[in-house]
Amino acid sequence: MGKQRVLTGITTSGTPHLGNYAGAIRPAIAASRQPGVESFYFLADYHALIKVQDPARVQRSTLEIAAAWLACGLDPDTVWFYRQSDVPEIPELTWLLTCVAGKGILNRAHAYKAAVDKNAAEGNDADAGVSAGLFMYPVLMAADILLFGAHTVPVGRDQVQHIEMARDFGARFNHIYGGEYFTLPEAAVEESVATLPGLDGRKMSKSYDNTIALFADAATLKKQIMGLVTDSRAPGEPKDTEGSALFQLYQAFASPAQTDALRADFAAGIAWGEAKQRLFEVIDAEIAPMRERYNALMADPARIEAVLQAGAVKARAIATPLLRQLRHAVGLRDLASAASSPASAVAEKPALPVFKQYREKDGKFYFKLSHANGDTLLQSRGFENPRDAGALLAKIKAEGKAAWHALRDVAELAELAQESQVLEALEAICREAAEAGAA
Amino acid sequence: MGKQRVLTGITTSGTPHLGNYAGAIRPAIAASRQPGVESFYFLADYHALIKVQDPARVQRSTLEIAAAWLACGLDPDTVWFYRQSDVPEIPELTWLLTCVAGKGILNRAHAYKAAVDKNAAEGNDADAGVSAGLFMYPVLMAADILLFGAHTVPVGRDQVQHIEMARDFGARFNHIYGGEYFTLPEAAVEESVATLPGLDGRKMSKSYDNTIALFADAATLKKQIMGLVTDSRAPGEPKDTEGSALFQLYQAFASPAQTDALRADFAAGIAWGEAKQRLFEVIDAEIAPMRERYNALMADPARIEAVLQAGAVKARAIATPLLRQLRHAVGLRDLASAASSPASAVAEKPALPVFKQYREKDGKFYFKLSHANGDTLLQSRGFENPRDAGALLAKIKAEGKAAWHALRDVAELAELAQESQVLEALEAICREAAEAGAA
Repeated sequence: MGKQRVLTGITTSGTPHLGNYAGAIRPAIAASRQPGVESFYFLADYHALIKVQDPARVQRSTLEIAAAWLACGLDPDTVWFYRQSDVPEIPELTWLLTCVAGKGILNRAHAYKAAVDKNAAEGNDADAGVSAGLFMYPVLMAADILLFGAHTVPVGRDQVQHIEMARDFGARFNHIYGGEYFTLPEAAVEESVATLPGLDGRKMSKSYDNTIALFADAATLKKQIMGLVTDSRAPGEPKDTEGSALFQLYQAFASPAQTDALRADFAAGIAWGEAKQRLFEVIDAEIAPMRERYNALMADPARIEAVLQAGAVKARAIATPLLRQLRHAVGLRDLASAASSPASAVAEKPALPVFKQYREKDGKFYFKLSHANGDTLLQSRGFENPRDAGALLAKIKAEGKAAWHALRDVAELAELAQESQVLEALEAICREAAEAGAA
Repeated sequence: MGKQRVLTGITTSGTPHLGNYAGAIRPAIAASRQPGVESFYFLADYHALIKVQDPARVQRSTLEIAAAWLACGLDPDTVWFYRQSDVPEIPELTWLLTCVAGKGILNRAHAYKAAVDKNAAEGNDADAGVSAGLFMYPVLMAADILLFGAHTVPVGRDQVQHIEMARDFGARFNHIYGGEYFTLPEAAVEESVATLPGLDGRKMSKSYDNTIALFADAATLKKQIMGLVTDSRAPGEPKDTEGSALFQLYQAFASPAQTDALRADFAAGIAWGEAKQRLFEVIDAEIAPMRERYNALMADPARIEAVLQAGAVKARAIATPLLRQLRHAVGLRDLASAASSPASAVAEKPALPVFKQYREKDGKFYFKLSHANGDTLLQSRGFENPRDAGALLAKIKAEGKAAWHALRDVAELAELAQESQVLEALEAICREAAEAGAA
């Protein structure tokens, strides 16, 4: 088994704030230090172009985000850290995937549908103001992921669909061109992303204009924190930690012992001004050394550029050979290489449907039947005992489509699947089992 | 004035036949020899992937088409002759254009609409079996054209829409990023493409399975021609040249004197067998020397590969510097280059609407008003006298939107244009004229 590859893209459309740090940068850098993991972080500037048509902002954001991740401790020698637009294999793979991606699937992407719904609500044409970039974004994202053979992509729940699409496009390509060209990625859903409250108590977000700058100087940081919204309890009055943005922020940066101490001081009626001073101190203690590195990096953009160029070389060491293989697979070949086709041998055996058992967080056992192209056909309900699903697989192997009536009671047809596809898949598994038994 | 650039793409999905030769290859090569023209011919293998998912066929077709064009006399030293997939700037530009292309425009592309209509007729989902490649094809085509600053793209009438889209995407990019980055191409509609009849008398086409091979050996060519469908008139009976596939084919390869002689022989009752022999001879006389070159090239694919590689170098000498400029324009920049932006200076003056007069084939004079982004706003009816349109322009310059009531009588609002846009455009032209007068 090779190492697990984990891939994260960072869209270069803004300036990192304290919420980005606690919610994304800090945990990602911690994860990159785990053994057994190969981490890929890239500056998603082709993605930024979908929304940001201000070139200076794209450039500035790329610089700031690269400097921030490096200042926060990302080690470009142990991870892959590169800028998307330095890897020409990405747009090329985007086109190859475009040719196998079903347009119907893209119609159902959340971000695109949200734009269509908004237009409908406003009485506009469905696609008014919608760029092809918004529509095609999942294909670019699939190329980002598949090009580096990522096993896992940490995402919020709203992004799970895009990972499913990357699986779908990758599986279709594998199927059409008859080979295991792509690793099919899994979404690692981050159920409990640490979101920080902003200055007004709502979630810290650029769109609420309530962010605390990550790398402002200490005086600015202090001034911002002093402006944090609190209730109007006077010094000496006990204060609630529950619902206190100040306390939540403190907790995100303090040790458990420090947090307990502040909790006690809240109960004892600490003045808000003093509490804010304590918050400033704990944040500044963590940020100050990074800020120094950040400022040094920002003062030397050529150094950042050099890090990214080196990252591109490292990334392309993976991307270029894979793309060469993919080009050969689709028929974009050196004409001098004649008709001999190392890839075609792989194609002879048709891909099989997949019956997969797994355990969910609820502790129960499930199975899923997928088409050879990766589409889910059937999804079971949860079983208490893993042997129940195993017994059903044995039944399929023995009986093929005759096992369908037993399956139907414990599993549901997937949204886009048809019964005839399930029956075919059951027959294929049965046939394969018979052949394997005979061999 | 630089030279006129003319660009032609050849999709690598089949084997060239005699109809391709007479209808496309022969006239294109003749055109490439005209003075004052820079000709670009490329093997459109990324396009082939939309329809052909058989890698061996893509490879074979690329080889055959390259060999055919070279054998027919295309001179790679005087034209640009390259393979699309050797130019990584093309998929990259495709993404940049994807980000500015309106999805709504792509919904209206003929090829995509035809697929949707077919699905509707068969009771399927609108996008059943439609790949994103079919949908995005006009954006790839726009990149092909815009990357090389083509002025003219010779196309059949059904392709005019795609050239309009390339203009639209290019104009939008120019507008958003405030510069004259792209030359906006014109379609050169080939009204009278020489289409040859096939063996059964219908238009020669692979889809009718009635083609005559371009580079089969002489014996095969002769055998195919002997199988040409004719009527059943016996030797000695006078024969009609009108509607005779044989005569049409002869005409496409013979001199006028030869054609006249055969016409006389038709009237005099030439036997079909003899007429076919004459047809074979005239075709073979033209093809034989090319066939020899073709066979020599096909026996040496490395030589063709070398020609294409050299062509890629020559093509990228144009593509790479332009893409560097485009990357800078959108904000994909060397971070070490800081914020100085040579492109931004171009942006200061907003682009103006365009009022354009022209003469159509009907001999009448027309005008068109276009938005600064290239969208047509207004299209006039035909005038007998060019001064009529000129007088209207003078009125617009003098009166701005007050000229609208006069325009409305002689011009129609374009399909997607709104009256408010026209009024704005008229005001902008008036303002500009006043400023120019004052300066």
